[in-house]
Formats: sequence, structure tokens, C-alpha cells
Amino acid sequence: MTTTAITNIGSLVTNDPALGDESPLGLLRDAAIVIDGDRIAWVGPTANAPAADDTVDAGGRAGIPGFVDSHSHLVFAGDRTQEFNARMSGRAYSAGGIRTTVAATRAATEEALEANLTHYLREALRQGTTTFETKSGYGLTVEDEARALRIAAQHTDEVTYLGAHIVPPDYADDPAGYVALVTGEMLDACAPYARWVDVFCEKGAFDGDQARAILTAGKAKGLHPRVHANQLSYGPGVQLAVELDAASADHCTHLTQQDVDALASGATVATLLPGAEFSTRAEWPDARRLLDAGVTVALSTDCNPGSSFTSSVPFCIALAVRDMKMTPDEAIWSATAGGAAALRRTDIGRITPGARADLALLDAPSHVHLAYRPGVPLVSDVWRQGKRCR
Amino acid sequence: MTTTAITNIGSLVTNDPALGDESPLGLLRDAAIVIDGDRIAWVGPTANAPAADDTVDAGGRAGIPGFVDSHSHLVFAGDRTQEFNARMSGRAYSAGGIRTTVAATRAATEEALEANLTHYLREALRQGTTTFETKSGYGLTVEDEARALRIAAQHTDEVTYLGAHIVPPDYADDPAGYVALVTGEMLDACAPYARWVDVFCEKGAFDGDQARAILTAGKAKGLHPRVHANQLSYGPGVQLAVELDAASADHCTHLTQQDVDALASGATVATLLPGAEFSTRAEWPDARRLLDAGVTVALSTDCNPGSSFTSSVPFCIALAVRDMKMTPDEAIWSATAGGAAALRRTDIGRITPGARADLALLDAPSHVHLAYRPGVPLVSDVWRQGKRCR
Ligand SMILES: [Zn+2]
Ligand SMILES: [Zn+2]
Repeated sequence: MTTTAITNIGSLVTNDPALGDESPLGLLRDAAIVIDGDRIAWVGPTANAPAADDTVDAGGRAGIPGFVDSHSHLVFAGDRTQEFNARMSGRAYSAGGIRTTVAATRAATEEALEANLTHYLREALRQGTTTFETKSGYGLTVEDEARALRIAAQHTDEVTYLGAHIVPPDYADDPAGYVALVTGEMLDACAPYARWVDVFCEKGAFDGDQARAILTAGKAKGLHPRVHANQLSYGPGVQLAVELDAASADHCTHLTQQDVDALASGATVATLLPGAEFSTRAEWPDARRLLDAGVTVALSTDCNPGSSFTSSVPFCIALAVRDMKMTPDEAIWSATAGGAAALRRTDIGRITPGARADLALLDAPSHVHLAYRPGVPLVSDVWRQGKRCR
Repeated sequence: MTTTAITNIGSLVTNDPALGDESPLGLLRDAAIVIDGDRIAWVGPTANAPAADDTVDAGGRAGIPGFVDSHSHLVFAGDRTQEFNARMSGRAYSAGGIRTTVAATRAATEEALEANLTHYLREALRQGTTTFETKSGYGLTVEDEARALRIAAQHTDEVTYLGAHIVPPDYADDPAGYVALVTGEMLDACAPYARWVDVFCEKGAFDGDQARAILTAGKAKGLHPRVHANQLSYGPGVQLAVELDAASADHCTHLTQQDVDALASGATVATLLPGAEFSTRAEWPDARRLLDAGVTVALSTDCNPGSSFTSSVPFCIALAVRDMKMTPDEAIWSATAGGAAALRRTDIGRITPGARADLALLDAPSHVHLAYRPGVPLVSDVWRQGKRCR
């Protein structure tokens, strides 16, 4: 295996306080990284860097761990441009919502779904995302959910079974029958491809009892829970997530003090998805309140064609700072180490010896520029599993 | 001169209603463009496209006129990362504001200023901006303002004399003396390099009488006025701009009904700069009110290292739709034809025979995706003056 040294990184976010300054970001100035195969072999000052087979001079640019996008919905077909356009233009439109995408996804070939997924994965990779979680949830039949997860498992790091996205039109009169399917035959067909089980716990989707049944059935099949919780209204999702030791409660837009206390006392990460609030003109999650209570916060895109069609983690960082009152340092931590925590991974989201060699260089002197220069594509170089991708 | 045909543009914004549908965007489906030298020679359906020396197949992607960024401040040195970081993190910081950039700019070599300017111009070009206006205003001495404009004139399309950005520290006790300089010796030194004269008409900068004196002196030297007006508070800037037939009143965040009426009755464009509101957490300009009153609205970045360090017109479009209640169509028009109107140009901002061959292709089927997919770098190909730049 060849080794590569990346030298003269003006400012490096390691997320390892032992390596850099004592802040959570473990900032290191004038840093170098040595990659050996798919792993980080060495991190330290450029002046002390060991010899390597190849050398890349970062020329003073900033370095960060690759982004860990722990929440996306990328196995789908079609888009919903007209629905978005009508919503933002204040025009009436008989939007089918998720159902529109379900119909298009069911009708698509496996090749089309795969081409669409890999298109968005490449797009995200160019923007610095090196770990992808993605979900099913636009199939909602045994065959279509299993197909989505089979495709996802071929291309993404983390795969989540979300048969419980909505009750599909074919079960509109029999939600209990659909829960039986999701916890029975569909689960059996899907479990081999997934690590996680998820449920959209919300009025109009699945209530607390249904969500508990779905997550518990998933656990019994060896899947670990994560929950779409408290996005559109107050509800039981967050406390259920903590009770079942879910890795993450995602959205967390409407929280009672009991919800915040539960998150602070448990091991469940709060994953905030400001792209959804941006594109639906909804109110922002209160990241400051969660951070001040000691909750671990992750930041992710929720990339999906309905409510948040962005694959840009830097955009989410800029929103988190502007509108959710995170500091730039907190936002970058949440989009890297926070995402790793939401996936219960320790090998990603940090630049430390032994970690996966996932990192990005920025056309900027500091990671703060991700918030300071919103919308500008600053990611100039990306390595994923030690392989240069950009 | 060689001709180039760009064919199979799935959806083309021409901004010429005679060419496409009857909307202001003049949308044309399955379109082709023929470029001859630096001009557009032909626009129409791909099926009817004449032969050309070279052909580029757009593969169904959307096409738009290149963005016209009619307001930026790009001749500067240094950045203000720490000031931004402190502001967004709620930490005290003795920010020097514009004065910090003035000190760094005065201290910089001409080569450094030029390298910085061309760096940001290239960055903007990659994001689809094909016309750049930029201003002086970080020199604030006769020599430093003239130097800034000389550099700007070498690299940008439109150059604006903004000696009246702030009263510099050296004139803190003698603002009248500074206005005399700006309207006298400094104007004489700067006028040869600029087309426009601008003033920051705001409490703490220049009042209505001072602004009138500065703009009138500029007009007498053959410069045409534009005004930084009503950004931070109500004031006389907008009505003064209309009275003096300024090409544009920029910011327009705090407007009385009289201000709106004045804009609607005159030929002055309202240029909105939501990047500034984003990065300073300020309230949004009411684009809807202006549009509904019949005012011509332009959309621009205000790219500068203090209050809006974005060079991304697509980001401003996404903000305009989300937070200023523009429709996606209106926002794209304002960022192209609107910017051209704010610069009193008819040769840019539209794709029509005879216009400058400035255009971008998007990795998307529709221009609406610029708002639908916020933060995603969708611009895949750029031509400027007929030359392929990306
Ligand atoms: Zn989701
Ligand atoms: Zn300005």
C-alpha cells in the first residue's frame, strides 16, 4: 500500500482534542496528515511529518474531516419541481407529497433508481460528504422496500429501513394492516440489507404505539432504531427514541422541556435538519437550547425531493449558524463528529490515527469560512477511504 | 470566427418573451443556441438549429443567461473571519468593521489586490456570474481609491467609485473636509477609471445633503449615480436616488410607502442583497411589496469581507425565494435581466440574437432548481463573451 502525505494544512479540524488545541475541534495549525491505504496513519505538525510515497501540498488551505451525512432519502425517482414552485410562489397545487414520489419510485427500473442514487452521492462527495446514510421509504411494498435497500446497500455506508415512512394509499383504510406488514413480511425481506430501522412518528403518519411496535420488531430482527421525531408538531417520538436507545432522534423541531431532558439524560443524538425548515419555510429547531442542555447534536441534509432537496452540508452549516444559533465550531463538529455519533461510529468524523481516511480541503484558510462564505462551493479536494475523489 | 451550437437545452430562460413562452422569462423547451464569436447569433428549437462549427449537447440540462452581479466590493485585502466568528458566536469582539479592511487594503501591494480580486472573480464565474460590477471604497485616500479603480477596470465589466463608503479615521473630525476631497481631488483621480459614482447614504456614513453633493459632483464629471440606500434604517437615500435618476438604489431594506412610490414612478432599479441580511442576521427586504408595486428588482451578492462574503448568486436566489417571497421565476429574472437593468445594459442578462454570449448550463432540468436545491453547486458549464469558461 502506498502512503500519501498532505502537508501545509493551514488549519486542521481533527475533532480530537488530544491532537490539537483543547477545543472540541482539536484544531492544529500548519498540520500534516499521512494516509496509509484507507486509514489515517499519522497527524501532526508539517515540520515533523514522516516521509511518504506521495505528497500533496495544501498550500495553507484548511482541512476538515469529511462530512458525515447521517440522514438522507436518496432511493427515489422523479422530482417535485412543480410542487416546490407552487408552494414558494403561493399558488394552489394539488400536491401528492410523498405519495408522488412513491408512485414514481415504484414505476422506475432498478437501473434508473441506481443511476439517480449514484448521481446524488457523487454530487454530495464533491461537496465533501464522505459518509452517507440513506433510507428506503418510497416503495412501501415488500418488493419495493427490499429493492430500495438492496440498491442502497451497494452504494452507501449506512442503510435504514423506513417502511414506516407513511401509510401508503393502498392501506389508507387499514393502517393496522400496514403496521403488521412493516413489522412482519416487509421487515423479513428488508432486514438483511439494513443496519437501522426508522419510523416517521408524527400526526398523519405513525403514532407512538405504532412507532414503538415497529421499532421493537426491528430490534428483534437485529436492527437498531432511529426515529423521525417531533418535526411538524409536539409528540411522543423523542422520548420514545431515548427510551429505546435509538442512535438518533431526527428533526427535533418541536420539543418540550421533558423532551430536552430525556435527550440530555440518554445516549440518543439529536439530528437537526435545517434544509427541511429552509425549504418548507418552517420554524427553526432550537439548537442552542439543546447544546446548552448538554445534548449531542448532529447536523445533516435530509436530502429528499420533497421537503429538503439539498445535498450540501456546507449549506446546512451556514443555516445552523445563522438561524439555529450554533457557533461555526459547533456546526462543523455536528456535521462531522456529530454525524458519526448519530451513526454510533468512531472510525469516521475525525482525523486521528486509525480513523478512516475521509477528509476535505477547503479553498479557505479556516473551517469558519463554511459559515462566513455561505453558498460558495469551498470544498476543493476530497479523500474518501484514502482515495482521492476530487 | 467559429460558431458553436449548444443543443438539447431542456429548458432555456431567454428573458425575451418574444422568443419563448409569454412569461417574462421567455422559456423555451428543447432549445438550441448558436454562438458566433462573442455574441448570440441564433436562439430557437433544437430541431431548427442551423449548422455550426462545433456542437455541445446539453443533454436536456437547463440553460440560463449568465448572472449579472451588479453590486460587489472586491478590491480589498485581508478577511474578517474572527469578527464574523465572534458575531455569530455571541462573543464580544472589538470589531473595526470597514476600517479593518481599509487598513489591510492600504497596506497591500497592487499585485496582492489584483490576485485577490481575480480569485473571487474566478470563483464567481464558476458559479455562473458572467458580469461583475465592483467598487472602490476600502482605500479612502486619493491614491488608494484610484489604485483600486485602476485594478477593477482591468478585470471587471463595470466599475464604481465609492470614495464615499465611510468617513475614514483620518477625517473623523472633519467630515466636510472628506466630502470636499471625495468631490474634488479624489473624484478627479478616480473618474477616468469608473462609469458609476456611489455613496453609502446612512446614519454614521453620509447624510442626504452630503450624498447629494457627492452624486451631483460625480454626475458633473460624467459618472452616473447609484446609491447604497436604506440598508440599516429609514433615510433619504432611496428618494434621492430616484430624484437623481440613479440606475439603482441598493439594499432597500427599510422603506416607507413614499420610498416605494418613488421607485415605482422612476427608472431606478431596487437592488436587493439578501446575503447581507443573511450574514448579519438582519431583517429581510420586502421584495414582494416592491414587485407588487411595479418596481424593477435586481438581485446581487454585495460580496465583501464584512457583511456578505458570498460570491454565490444561486445562494441569493434561494434566499430571495425563501425569505423575500419572490417566486423562483422572479428571482432568476432579477439575478440576470434585473442586474442588467441595474447597470442600464441591454446587451447582457438575456439570451437573444445580438446579446453578449453569456450563459450557463445547470445540472438540473429547470432553472427552478436554483431555489429548489439550495446550496448545491448546480452550474455545470459557463460561457462568457462566447468563451467557454467552465
Ligand atoms: Zn427524513
Ligand atoms: Zn455594498
